[in-house]
Amino acid sequence: MTNEEENLFQENIRAVQDTMYVIGGKWKLPIILSIYKGNKRFNDIANSIPKITNRVLSKELKHLEDNFLIKRTLVNEYPVKIEYSVVDYTFSLHDIIRPMEVWGKKHKEKIRKEL
Amino acid sequence: MTNEEENLFQENIRAVQDTMYVIGGKWKLPIILSIYKGNKRFNDIANSIPKITNRVLSKELKHLEDNFLIKRTLVNEYPVKIEYSVVDYTFSLHDIIRPMEVWGKKHKEKIRKEL
Repeated sequence: MTNEEENLFQENIRAVQDTMYVIGGKWKLPIILSIYKGNKRFNDIANSIPKITNRVLSKELKHLEDNFLIKRTLVNEYPVKIEYSVVDYTFSLHDIIRPMEVWGKKHKEKIRKEL
Repeated sequence: MTNEEENLFQENIRAVQDTMYVIGGKWKLPIILSIYKGNKRFNDIANSIPKITNRVLSKELKHLEDNFLIKRTLVNEYPVKIEYSVVDYTFSLHDIIRPMEVWGKKHKEKIRKEL
């Protein structure tokens, strides 16, 4: 490998690690998908995702908001409500999620055959 | 959503979570890429990945081997050597990794602009 190839290689690894940081882990994509499905309120999101704790959900919502993947809105009623929604940018994840769905299903099949 | 749509939706979420389980986290893809680049021995792989500990590398190699993504070979020399290599199946990850590289780079750009 030339130095240039090596640099590009390292840059690509970092880009993959960045993506993993933003959407990786067990909960972030299920949370996004729950909001996409129409759950707007904290409790509704929490109830739609088996086994998630309030503390973790709270942390993950903040992380997703910081990364512009969901929007948090204060609804000016009495009492004030907080609502979460997906945004245009959320849909950029489709290009990543779809291949992961496909690979995940094929992998399950492979594991089943090999064991 | 009909029940059927709901079931497909849940199935897709699980497939994404399965993929995350197999290749998620900070180290698994860098390890695969290091072996792909030609590092075969434990120490060479360890040295090629900044900040990874031997304990974590050991655990991750086992996980990747269990998922058929790398091969562990005993080379019958004196002393016996252990070598790691990628296999045909490793390349199925290309369909996932490439979109993550692309998204990761665009996301970095977006964060830079928004802040």
